[in-house]
Amino acid sequence: MKIDLVPSVDFIKEDKLIGKSVVVIDMLRATSVIVTAIKNNCKEVIPVVTIEEALALKDKNDCLLGGERHAIKIEGFDFSNSPLEYTEDKVAGKIVTMTTSNGTRAIKGCEKGKTLIMAAMINGEAVAKKLVEIGDDVVIVNAGTEGEFSIDDFICGGHIINHLCNMENETELSDIAKTALFVYKNNDNVEDYIKEARHYRRIMELGLQDDFIYCCKKDITNVVPVYKEGKVLKSE
Amino acid sequence: MKIDLVPSVDFIKEDKLIGKSVVVIDMLRATSVIVTAIKNNCKEVIPVVTIEEALALKDKNDCLLGGERHAIKIEGFDFSNSPLEYTEDKVAGKIVTMTTSNGTRAIKGCEKGKTLIMAAMINGEAVAKKLVEIGDDVVIVNAGTEGEFSIDDFICGGHIINHLCNMENETELSDIAKTALFVYKNNDNVEDYIKEARHYRRIMELGLQDDFIYCCKKDITNVVPVYKEGKVLKSE
Repeated sequence: MKIDLVPSVDFIKEDKLIGKSVVVIDMLRATSVIVTAIKNNCKEVIPVVTIEEALALKDKNDCLLGGERHAIKIEGFDFSNSPLEYTEDKVAGKIVTMTTSNGTRAIKGCEKGKTLIMAAMINGEAVAKKLVEIGDDVVIVNAGTEGEFSIDDFICGGHIINHLCNMENETELSDIAKTALFVYKNNDNVEDYIKEARHYRRIMELGLQDDFIYCCKKDITNVVPVYKEGKVLKSE
Repeated sequence: MKIDLVPSVDFIKEDKLIGKSVVVIDMLRATSVIVTAIKNNCKEVIPVVTIEEALALKDKNDCLLGGERHAIKIEGFDFSNSPLEYTEDKVAGKIVTMTTSNGTRAIKGCEKGKTLIMAAMINGEAVAKKLVEIGDDVVIVNAGTEGEFSIDDFICGGHIINHLCNMENETELSDIAKTALFVYKNNDNVEDYIKEARHYRRIMELGLQDDFIYCCKKDITNVVPVYKEGKVLKSE
């Protein structure tokens, strides 16, 4: 199994995704939100790039709206981009339409992948298991922050690569995948390392300490959301 | 001083180079060659992208030709891409025209930078001193290998960032610059880490062990080659 990593949404080369299992990571916070919503029995998540698309879908379907711009809730939306808001009593059986600055753009940029999986720290082990089960080569796509490399998504990639290397005997890592694994393995405390991220400051300024602690938890759910034809659903 | 890093030639965003000191790294081996040739009193190095351009310049000027494709010497050229060939007796007072797979393409891709410096392990400290002297924000551009992130150039970037942080009190590192510094600081033996690079295997297959050892030496020369208007010269 070959394993590669793309360090931000601006660096996606679509042709390199063809035939691969593609793993999208925006751990602070879009993919942590999606994993949590699906875990809490949300019917499906529809990621869209613009606010206008989200509002148009709300008019057409009976759906809830979630997401952010500059990490802040969007006017007229039901949820912000805090995973802690997507509780079972609010999302079970519902469709959630989401738009975020980096995460939903990353998902849309990965549509050429054969299988498209949503990953975060909270479901890292389950994602790795699913990847081994599928058996295709893997490209991990970090959403990053404003098109730039982001420490949080990079170490989260390392977390998944670490699980993959433990589960699978024959892995071939690209140089950047090896580097993500090195960074992960040399940081016993993931939270402390992510505090170095530029993105972390913004999260703290907005008082999102609880979101941060939740998103840094490793492997707390077995849910593996998969994107197909515009929708994110629980994988079978 | 803001410090950022671009992980390969394919990821250069030209607008982000404007007004900055741009440092090009292709330590295995193009920039190690350029530094060595300039150290050995070569008059100037002219980097060109294609073999045809190099041959045309040879016809027009009295110059030597150096470089590689797939790490192998090009037919009709005077030198391969081995820094050990560019000895003083061969290059002193001469013009060297060079074309390589990744390095010369990286240099050309950085022409929008305010100052364009050629760096490798062998001149890391001198490059950092020059950057501090100039005082502008810094973008380190890794040539990478075939447009991809390469472990060797990344840790070399970390080496220069480490020197910069030791010399300059006020530095502001991007997430990827912090990661390069982390990788550098957590590898006492740079050679061992670079042996993980995909590129390393190719170098060894071709029997270039001596080149590898030379290119991994830290801070053995004070030469800082600067590119301006198509030519690389020793900085004043």
